[in-house]
Amino acid sequence: MPQPNIDASKLKVTLTETPKPDYDNKTLSFGKNFTDHMLCIKYTEENGWEAPEIKPYGPLAIDPAAFVLNYSVETFEGMKAYRAADGTINLFRPSMNMQRLSTSSQRIKLPEFDQEQFLQCIKELVKVDQRFVPDQYGYSLYIRPNFIGTEPNLNLMYSKEALLYVYLSPVGPYFPRTVKLYANSEQARAWPGGVGNFKLGGNYAPALKPAMDVVAKGYDQILWLLGEDHYVTEVGTMNFLIFWVNEDGEKELVTAPLDGIILPGVTRDSLLALARQWGEFKVSERRVTMPEMIRAIADGRMLEAFGAGTACVVCSVSEIFYEGKSYAIPVDPSNPDAVFGPLTNRLRTELLDIQYGKTPSPWAVPV
Amino acid sequence: MPQPNIDASKLKVTLTETPKPDYDNKTLSFGKNFTDHMLCIKYTEENGWEAPEIKPYGPLAIDPAAFVLNYSVETFEGMKAYRAADGTINLFRPSMNMQRLSTSSQRIKLPEFDQEQFLQCIKELVKVDQRFVPDQYGYSLYIRPNFIGTEPNLNLMYSKEALLYVYLSPVGPYFPRTVKLYANSEQARAWPGGVGNFKLGGNYAPALKPAMDVVAKGYDQILWLLGEDHYVTEVGTMNFLIFWVNEDGEKELVTAPLDGIILPGVTRDSLLALARQWGEFKVSERRVTMPEMIRAIADGRMLEAFGAGTACVVCSVSEIFYEGKSYAIPVDPSNPDAVFGPLTNRLRTELLDIQYGKTPSPWAVPV
Repeated sequence: MPQPNIDASKLKVTLTETPKPDYDNKTLSFGKNFTDHMLCIKYTEENGWEAPEIKPYGPLAIDPAAFVLNYSVETFEGMKAYRAADGTINLFRPSMNMQRLSTSSQRIKLPEFDQEQFLQCIKELVKVDQRFVPDQYGYSLYIRPNFIGTEPNLNLMYSKEALLYVYLSPVGPYFPRTVKLYANSEQARAWPGGVGNFKLGGNYAPALKPAMDVVAKGYDQILWLLGEDHYVTEVGTMNFLIFWVNEDGEKELVTAPLDGIILPGVTRDSLLALARQWGEFKVSERRVTMPEMIRAIADGRMLEAFGAGTACVVCSVSEIFYEGKSYAIPVDPSNPDAVFGPLTNRLRTELLDIQYGKTPSPWAVPV
Repeated sequence: MPQPNIDASKLKVTLTETPKPDYDNKTLSFGKNFTDHMLCIKYTEENGWEAPEIKPYGPLAIDPAAFVLNYSVETFEGMKAYRAADGTINLFRPSMNMQRLSTSSQRIKLPEFDQEQFLQCIKELVKVDQRFVPDQYGYSLYIRPNFIGTEPNLNLMYSKEALLYVYLSPVGPYFPRTVKLYANSEQARAWPGGVGNFKLGGNYAPALKPAMDVVAKGYDQILWLLGEDHYVTEVGTMNFLIFWVNEDGEKELVTAPLDGIILPGVTRDSLLALARQWGEFKVSERRVTMPEMIRAIADGRMLEAFGAGTACVVCSVSEIFYEGKSYAIPVDPSNPDAVFGPLTNRLRTELLDIQYGKTPSPWAVPV
């Protein structure tokens, strides 16, 4: 008999007796405010997936010897719920997150799960906590699915027990301004044969100190370069895209290919798809090096550079520090106060219009 | 006023009311049996280190949004307590573990701690649970200090709250036999600019699947190769050492240098020091490639190869699979049943004799 998989019809809901007050949109900062409830689904190798449970948000009881606390057996996702003008709450391409979570979890030997049923449970959680979905354009309810290995066992085998859980955090705009990046070729976020293309917790801890170091220097985030040719990979919380006139004189939107180094971002994929639909310029996934970018800046061929990710949606890059020198990146030459470049803004608006239900699209999935 | 650091004199001890039965040495397997108590020391940026606490072993209450569960802000150590014939319980070079834990924790922005005071608390924990220190040569009490970021905050800054905790597991011999390694050049455990030289949980999760895959092929562990020249790095749970006649005709004990890729093992360091004291052959920390090793095997110059680490102490390698071919490594040509090669066994015996108090040494530190 096959073991039970996740079954949304068995969902148990226990509501909190101490609901939190509503959050004021103005005071929201990313990832610090949580809602009333969380979703927990336990797995054991012996009995498969247990009945999903929505219960009050609160501490998890984790064995000191659990895989997650010793060997970082953990993977996560980032998604958002958006409130449309008519009150509908939409998720954005959630099946891409389900698929990526599945891919990431298999990489660290966490058990397989029914993606459809898990998504159904997430929708139920969002419905239970729907009062926390902000009703303001640009604001949303961030959804964090976490998948952790909970078996207490120091043997480097695999975790025979696991917890898949989801919690929610109402958020405002992540970077409501342009950002300055610091190109780092000394440390590496990811490498060939590594795990940079999986959303594992272990990719993030090593990036904290380098990130804090560049903040101390007055920059916002790191632009991760790789190898001797200084291949431009990603920002770590965002994929990185440039819009330029390439060396062949063509207008081109280009970002790093999914070569095993790069996180396959849902926003990245969506922006590339939108731009390809337009068909107005070349859209490429290929490796670009920092020296190529510097040449383009020097030649006046760099039009815009921006980051893309679920948390930030998009954000324009106004400056990149590289090998002792700071390079200005155009944002919007027609408007010195612009927070987004023209192409960045057009992509952003099209995406937000889908997410907030202004433009009908199969990418918006009502809860 | 400086914030309070760890203060062993403030240690609070709460003993369990449900002590576990003694373990039978014969049934011990690595890292599955835990003792009655654990040590917990909490930190907050606001108030510094709280009073250390020894309390019954049990689940930790961790916020779902804690850094450790989302971004793998976690580092650990592995140490052992050994019971000497006269009943004394020794730690082995514990200050090296304290220093490495400090180095690892700074890499992921966990707070600094007083190494001496923390070690004092660990000694107290071992004393409280001393009945679990096995009284048999080759058996010991494994000590696992874990250091985790506990602040609930999804921002990729650093964790302003942390928990340093220690738990204990009585263990028997890790590999009571020779091991077969599978050389892996397709995936990478570590990388220049990466974090392979720090004992971070995030280095271990990505190695689980590759390790299970080679177990399914009949091998014990992976020998991690790096780069196009297939530099022989380490085993992942052990450093890797070879004893050979090098291409200049010299007898040489050689292991990978501490070049940022390699975990700086305490056992590795100790074995190199012992062999250097003997002064009988060359002892080198330098890069060796897999093709060089294959040539030495073909020429009959390979004498022994072995892994070294706290969990296993040493274990001889009898076979390495590389690029479609299996290569036999000599263990002890004079004894087909030998589990250790002659040099490996001599190093092991000298080390164990220090650890179990047979040979007086400043490396053995009584609790």
